[in-house]
Amino acid sequence: MKTPFLGCAYYPEDWDDSQLEYDISMMKKAGITCARIGEFAWRKMEPKRGQYEFGWLHRVVDALGAAGISVVLGTPTATPPVWLGKSFPDVFVLNKDGTRASHGGRRHCCSNNPHYLDASDQIVHAMGREFGSDPNVVGWQLDNEILTWGTGCTCEHCVKAYHDRLRREYGDIETLNARWNLNLFSQAYDDFDEIPGDWNAWHNPHLKYEWAAAHYEADIAFMHRQTEILRLYTKAPIGTDMMPTNAMGYEEMCAPLDVVMFNHYNTPENLSDAVFWFDYLRTLKDRPFWNTETATTWNGSTAIGQVLKPEGYCRVNSWLPVALGGECNMYWLWRQHWAGHELVHGSVLTPEGRPTHTFGEVQRTAEEYEKVSAFIGGTKVKAECAVHFTSKAWQLFDQQKVFNDNWYAGDVQAVHRALRKSGVCPDVIGAAHSLDGYKLLVSPCLMTLEDGDLADKIRTFVENGGVWVAGPLTDVRNDIGAHYVDRAMGMIEDWLGVRQDYGIPTDGSVLKCAWADGDELHVRKWAENYTNLGDGEVLASVTGGHSALIGETVIGRYKVGKGEVILCGALLEEADYMRLFALACEDASVTPYSTDGGLNVIPRAGEAGEGMILCETAHRSASVEFEGSMTDLLTGETFEGRAEVEPYGVRVLKKN
Amino acid sequence: MKTPFLGCAYYPEDWDDSQLEYDISMMKKAGITCARIGEFAWRKMEPKRGQYEFGWLHRVVDALGAAGISVVLGTPTATPPVWLGKSFPDVFVLNKDGTRASHGGRRHCCSNNPHYLDASDQIVHAMGREFGSDPNVVGWQLDNEILTWGTGCTCEHCVKAYHDRLRREYGDIETLNARWNLNLFSQAYDDFDEIPGDWNAWHNPHLKYEWAAAHYEADIAFMHRQTEILRLYTKAPIGTDMMPTNAMGYEEMCAPLDVVMFNHYNTPENLSDAVFWFDYLRTLKDRPFWNTETATTWNGSTAIGQVLKPEGYCRVNSWLPVALGGECNMYWLWRQHWAGHELVHGSVLTPEGRPTHTFGEVQRTAEEYEKVSAFIGGTKVKAECAVHFTSKAWQLFDQQKVFNDNWYAGDVQAVHRALRKSGVCPDVIGAAHSLDGYKLLVSPCLMTLEDGDLADKIRTFVENGGVWVAGPLTDVRNDIGAHYVDRAMGMIEDWLGVRQDYGIPTDGSVLKCAWADGDELHVRKWAENYTNLGDGEVLASVTGGHSALIGETVIGRYKVGKGEVILCGALLEEADYMRLFALACEDASVTPYSTDGGLNVIPRAGEAGEGMILCETAHRSASVEFEGSMTDLLTGETFEGRAEVEPYGVRVLKKN
Amino acid sequence: MKTPFLGCAYYPEDWDDSQLEYDISMMKKAGITCARIGEFAWRKMEPKRGQYEFGWLHRVVDALGAAGISVVLGTPTATPPVWLGKSFPDVFVLNKDGTRASHGGRRHCCSNNPHYLDASDQIVHAMGREFGSDPNVVGWQLDNEILTWGTGCTCEHCVKAYHDRLRREYGDIETLNARWNLNLFSQAYDDFDEIPGDWNAWHNPHLKYEWAAAHYEADIAFMHRQTEILRLYTKAPIGTDMMPTNAMGYEEMCAPLDVVMFNHYNTPENLSDAVFWFDYLRTLKDRPFWNTETATTWNGSTAIGQVLKPEGYCRVNSWLPVALGGECNMYWLWRQHWAGHELVHGSVLTPEGRPTHTFGEVQRTAEEYEKVSAFIGGTKVKAECAVHFTSKAWQLFDQQKVFNDNWYAGDVQAVHRALRKSGVCPDVIGAAHSLDGYKLLVSPCLMTLEDGDLADKIRTFVENGGVWVAGPLTDVRNDIGAHYVDRAMGMIEDWLGVRQDYGIPTDGSVLKCAWADGDELHVRKWAENYTNLGDGEVLASVTGGHSALIGETVIGRYKVGKGEVILCGALLEEADYMRLFALACEDASVTPYSTDGGLNVIPRAGEAGEGMILCETAHRSASVEFEGSMTDLLTGETFEGRAEVEPYGVRVLKKN
Repeated sequence: MKTPFLGCAYYPEDWDDSQLEYDISMMKKAGITCARIGEFAWRKMEPKRGQYEFGWLHRVVDALGAAGISVVLGTPTATPPVWLGKSFPDVFVLNKDGTRASHGGRRHCCSNNPHYLDASDQIVHAMGREFGSDPNVVGWQLDNEILTWGTGCTCEHCVKAYHDRLRREYGDIETLNARWNLNLFSQAYDDFDEIPGDWNAWHNPHLKYEWAAAHYEADIAFMHRQTEILRLYTKAPIGTDMMPTNAMGYEEMCAPLDVVMFNHYNTPENLSDAVFWFDYLRTLKDRPFWNTETATTWNGSTAIGQVLKPEGYCRVNSWLPVALGGECNMYWLWRQHWAGHELVHGSVLTPEGRPTHTFGEVQRTAEEYEKVSAFIGGTKVKAECAVHFTSKAWQLFDQQKVFNDNWYAGDVQAVHRALRKSGVCPDVIGAAHSLDGYKLLVSPCLMTLEDGDLADKIRTFVENGGVWVAGPLTDVRNDIGAHYVDRAMGMIEDWLGVRQDYGIPTDGSVLKCAWADGDELHVRKWAENYTNLGDGEVLASVTGGHSALIGETVIGRYKVGKGEVILCGALLEEADYMRLFALACEDASVTPYSTDGGLNVIPRAGEAGEGMILCETAHRSASVEFEGSMTDLLTGETFEGRAEVEPYGVRVLKKN
Repeated sequence: MKTPFLGCAYYPEDWDDSQLEYDISMMKKAGITCARIGEFAWRKMEPKRGQYEFGWLHRVVDALGAAGISVVLGTPTATPPVWLGKSFPDVFVLNKDGTRASHGGRRHCCSNNPHYLDASDQIVHAMGREFGSDPNVVGWQLDNEILTWGTGCTCEHCVKAYHDRLRREYGDIETLNARWNLNLFSQAYDDFDEIPGDWNAWHNPHLKYEWAAAHYEADIAFMHRQTEILRLYTKAPIGTDMMPTNAMGYEEMCAPLDVVMFNHYNTPENLSDAVFWFDYLRTLKDRPFWNTETATTWNGSTAIGQVLKPEGYCRVNSWLPVALGGECNMYWLWRQHWAGHELVHGSVLTPEGRPTHTFGEVQRTAEEYEKVSAFIGGTKVKAECAVHFTSKAWQLFDQQKVFNDNWYAGDVQAVHRALRKSGVCPDVIGAAHSLDGYKLLVSPCLMTLEDGDLADKIRTFVENGGVWVAGPLTDVRNDIGAHYVDRAMGMIEDWLGVRQDYGIPTDGSVLKCAWADGDELHVRKWAENYTNLGDGEVLASVTGGHSALIGETVIGRYKVGKGEVILCGALLEEADYMRLFALACEDASVTPYSTDGGLNVIPRAGEAGEGMILCETAHRSASVEFEGSMTDLLTGETFEGRAEVEPYGVRVLKKN
Repeated sequence: MKTPFLGCAYYPEDWDDSQLEYDISMMKKAGITCARIGEFAWRKMEPKRGQYEFGWLHRVVDALGAAGISVVLGTPTATPPVWLGKSFPDVFVLNKDGTRASHGGRRHCCSNNPHYLDASDQIVHAMGREFGSDPNVVGWQLDNEILTWGTGCTCEHCVKAYHDRLRREYGDIETLNARWNLNLFSQAYDDFDEIPGDWNAWHNPHLKYEWAAAHYEADIAFMHRQTEILRLYTKAPIGTDMMPTNAMGYEEMCAPLDVVMFNHYNTPENLSDAVFWFDYLRTLKDRPFWNTETATTWNGSTAIGQVLKPEGYCRVNSWLPVALGGECNMYWLWRQHWAGHELVHGSVLTPEGRPTHTFGEVQRTAEEYEKVSAFIGGTKVKAECAVHFTSKAWQLFDQQKVFNDNWYAGDVQAVHRALRKSGVCPDVIGAAHSLDGYKLLVSPCLMTLEDGDLADKIRTFVENGGVWVAGPLTDVRNDIGAHYVDRAMGMIEDWLGVRQDYGIPTDGSVLKCAWADGDELHVRKWAENYTNLGDGEVLASVTGGHSALIGETVIGRYKVGKGEVILCGALLEEADYMRLFALACEDASVTPYSTDGGLNVIPRAGEAGEGMILCETAHRSASVEFEGSMTDLLTGETFEGRAEVEPYGVRVLKKN
């Protein structure tokens, strides 16, 4: 399959066979080169238990293949047929109130239920046997958007899995009682089996964290189990399409899979978040990721909640994953459902088979992918800066916000956005990711450093010359989110010779801070105050609010080994973040692109040459400066030292 | 009973017998000519199962009769006595979470429960036997404000009734699977009995529609069952008082009943909606409807949520139903409850028997009714224009909004309001209503035309010279809310030679539209875009937002037979609706009244002469122009060519 | 123990023994003289049923004692150990939906459950035996923040207790049916056991009131039961720390206890409410109350919802209870939890043992308490004015608001705030409190006067020369919240020769009122309208809105015996309240302090002299005028005729 490829989700099972030919002809017209099929069609593949019917699916795969359209096959385990729940009513999630989910939606079965797992195994085996060596099947998608149902199924299997996890993680009950501080509220247990799950009580955050983690584990194990089965039959890459809606770890999930998949429905208001996610996804595996879902027009699961987007949005939205390190973009969905759920969701074709208004943007994207295939395939995104975004931190913050408006992903995204606006193209990395090759590392809200070898890697990074911007809320808790009792920060205090005296919630009304030159420092929501015990340099400090705080350091710079740490105790407004990052870049010898308008500049380099892709996501004219001459591979235009981009514009510039 | 009559809900069972005489004397003073009693007094009528006590009720009916006050008797089935639930706990609604409703409120029993139905039958028989031929009982009200409890009782009887309905509607399971598109999400069933009701899952809109419809059916059947029983004993008219709070069909409910009843609690903010409902109610039966409940002052079911209304509100609110085609107005309630539920609800008398501050307005209304009795009784509202408002469309939209802020009743009311402000007095009609006699028909958001002979009637109407203003969201789905797969609109595309290309959600920020003369067209929330394949005339089109849309028709005019269709693809701001309706009226030879200030002008004609009633509902001075001379039957004033009305004023003008 | 004392909640069970010495040394440094311990440590005291371990607790009590720090011991019944729920799962509250609360939080057991009561008895006996005569235990706190779980446990024991209460209160079922007006909605019962609790139905307000009252009774009985047990072992004062979050009666609860305890977490936005509560608490017993909990910085139960408070807040907040009649202030908590629940709550020390930024304010408070110990101990707050705030009224309004925004505590607090801003220092008193010694009595929203001898006391008070400001919503219902049927007000109408004609909800848009001199009277939310039948003087009346209302009295003054009643029918804006109270004070010969800026002036007098404490709570400069010369015992400054206070300032002025 030629990359990058343009795909779509296609549900032939929902349509009369007569439509197949027409749909394929329109896919060709649109420039679609890959169809994602099968993900919800369990009933059509196995109408009665153990009785398989794959003829219809072969006909679809073959017809697509004949037209030069590759196929990604989905395992349909998100939607078992009615016969499963009829035989085993306990396959459905047990809600907190004692009611059970029922047949009819999706992702409503318990990932710990043996009957569900058994039936899922069988259909995956059957699909593998049937299509594992089909040359037109270029990939496999496991299930669909797997995620925890509410705060988790409460059935006996889930409770047992949770108790098993607790035994494994804590060993004996006294250790758990001690680590969770369970003399508090007389919570302590005599046996693991007494520990309730996270429902019907005001539970402590450690219990909540483990309860959620046990459910993440079950879902991850379920995907890995399907992977092992498919590997018996196929060499095509396997992945599972997830959404960034909860803290289930992408790293752990994707480790044994072949390709990272991702669904997103960002809008003009938050398209910068898509950039964040793509900057993250490309660091998870060496292989380019797949953007498996996005809308051509609007999301409208049950009712449309969006409005017409300006022209160009569809194109730049389709370009972002490819520019940022993926190898495909797929639309959900090809043809709007004619009945049933999600009847009004945006698509490439209307139910009656007519092009939607973005059809031209889809075609243009397809042509452009084709045109720059060699450059994209022969280059990679090159980043000198990394931003930490760890599953552990997300899971901990999920169960214990420090202040009301404290959302981990959002707080990291604000830092990422400021870096992008500063002209830096950062990688976003998890805790396990190597720090080799980076000059600048930014770790906001990294609640704990007790996450594998993370602390050691950071130390080495700095001592070898790296610049680390840390904080706020970084290194403030242990691996289950508990405070240290002899220091406020786990590693940082001793290491830097600094003491965190206070953590102050603020709305800007009382607490006042300033940069060393007197300019106001605009703090959002939270500020930690430090005393420099050694020779740290004060970059910003408290200037007003309470006499105990005035003079305390808010941002300090500490030389360590060949490198340095900038300890930033506060969430900042964007302009202050940009000032901070300008300074950090200078210290790290990172040269940001000179750009206006918040243009996303994405440097690419490799065997196919060197250059940059520009993706304008703020809907305004923008420009970037560079040395020498570049040619836009899309238009053939050549630019000397500076290129301009129209609102929602895309350029693929190659150095001459 | 002389009409129009002024009534009130009276609960003698809640008061010491000693109060009866006083209450009746005050009713006389107020001008009350009809009391609605008995509706919740089951326990007092049947304190033990099968043991009836009607003496107290006879005494009340007789005393009222002796004072010249007629009685409407209510069947008390909304509030069974404690002995019923004690013997049969399953009479109470079964909630989704497995809990049951309990004794103490009202409308908390299941309309499919055989024990409840049986006990209800018996009390209705008993009341019929006792009062069926009482000359002072001039009408019967069945139950009270019957409506579905939440999204419907989930008991075995309700599930069975739902399965019975599905069998009846779809015949065999494969037809249902096919029509509901149940390969989607592998939902398909092997048997009707496997189909869950609408709870504990994300269900498809067709299932949700049928689940709700099955509950509407049960409630309607329950009312019809009571009607059949009462008919054994009485010739007085029978009705059931409903509220416009859900999509249960008034047409189907009222078909075998004698009189349409209606409760409303509109306020100054939305009094125009009461006008809408009355314009609808009068079209349901040839007989004048009864406005069975409204407040003299404020609604205060559990706490007052309204404030003092300006003087005149009570009077115009009391006049509206009579002016618009009803024959009575009744207040809820006569004397404020002294204890128990609804302790603070507005009334005619306070608990201690003192007049509330609107007592004078009540008296004035009574006097005015008396004064114009002959004119009201001898004339009817005459409309040349009709607006469609169908139960089917409401029920479909209820289960599948197209966009977030899409509320069928509200979207039709906006059209109705604009027509009223344009000086048109429209009928609001259901799908079954004849189109004969209308010149102009307006059908916004009429999701499906597959509703009896609706499509044929519309075709004939237009071909015979009528003007039909259709859309948006009209004719876009089939009878269960599914898309057509070979066309975007069921009847309209082929008929008019038009193609609906796109449906665009908008907040006005990106999509721009204009009338043919260049004036901006202000679109609210939704715009359909058309290509005229034949010779339609473009009245308004897209001018900005996306190149694929620019130039597309938003409002087009199509000549068909002797008539025409104006296809309006968008929800409009009021001024644009008024421009559209001015044009449509001209084409239809409908002459709107020339009025300022949004005055409701209600033409009346019949054996008693010709004239118009003016009801000012916007609380400002207004006027209307007319030809010739008219006399206000209320004041005796004569007007030449123009009459003015004060804020909240009412005039009954008769042509001289 | 020297008073006033400064205390803190301390949880040694959550910390390694090694920390005890350090914590105590820091308490000494802070000036803490009392630690509240043990309240949640049941498991550590009784790790297995009947096996007690008090050694650790003795060591803590002794170590504190050795350092001169007294101890208040808490019974830990809010948090039973896991063994209790394991043996008896029904100890946990049964929710409305049939689910049960589970082990892990607090206050989740049913106060009517015999197993829970039995286990609670045993631990209280054990603690009493162990520590009843410990000289360092200076007080006992029962349980913690006892309150009804949601709308109340629904278990069989609770339902039985409720039925028992109904039998006791109403005697026979016919009386209940009659008093509750249960012919309405056919609710009437044949037996007490048929009466449902307040769930799964729309219930009448009398049922709801009794259901809630039965739960209050159970909680109060539980505390009294513990009291009786402790009295077997100790002579130290006993109390229970409650929060003003629901209508459970402080008076009934505290009657047999020794000391009134109270927890508050007011903020700069509503610190005036803390003044209200303290003005109330000091009237409940002759003994100074204990403020058992407040935050040094911010409340952060699960996430911090507050921001940095200006300097001085901690000090004035700590001073308020002492200035207003208490003898201590305690912080929750000493050292921030290092893990578990409430991980981010404000404290005196951080988890790592460092002082928080208010440490200096704590120290200063401690020093100041010490400095003025004699003056505080030898004087009491002296009030000439009282404001009624009754548990009965609160409980009635809780179940039947008159209008949507009708909140009893808030409406009384608005009156209290206006009095304070007028320079008056009022007592806030319950229904049982004597009226002797007051000159002015203010009773807003006192829904019923049928509350013990309340009506008689008020009559006597007025007839002997007192001035009573009554209304609105005062005397409008009987003891279960039902209307009178022969008069609108129970006692007032006949007594004063006045008739309440109307009660009008208003937002100021239609209803207009004015003082007798023509100045506008700004009414908030509600206005009662009166006709003066006798010779009352009209102070304010209706001037616009509806002809039936114009000219009606809104505020009237009535001479009765040697005193007078000012009947104020409306909730007023603050400026109008202040005008009303100026007039009432003059009539009552009460001389308000002349103060600007809303300064709290708290007169104190007794054997230690005379003076006033000033507590500034609005964060602005303020001043007060007085006759003669006063010396600030905190600073030694002497003032002649006038003293100024800085924002959040405190002065303890003694007359020279």
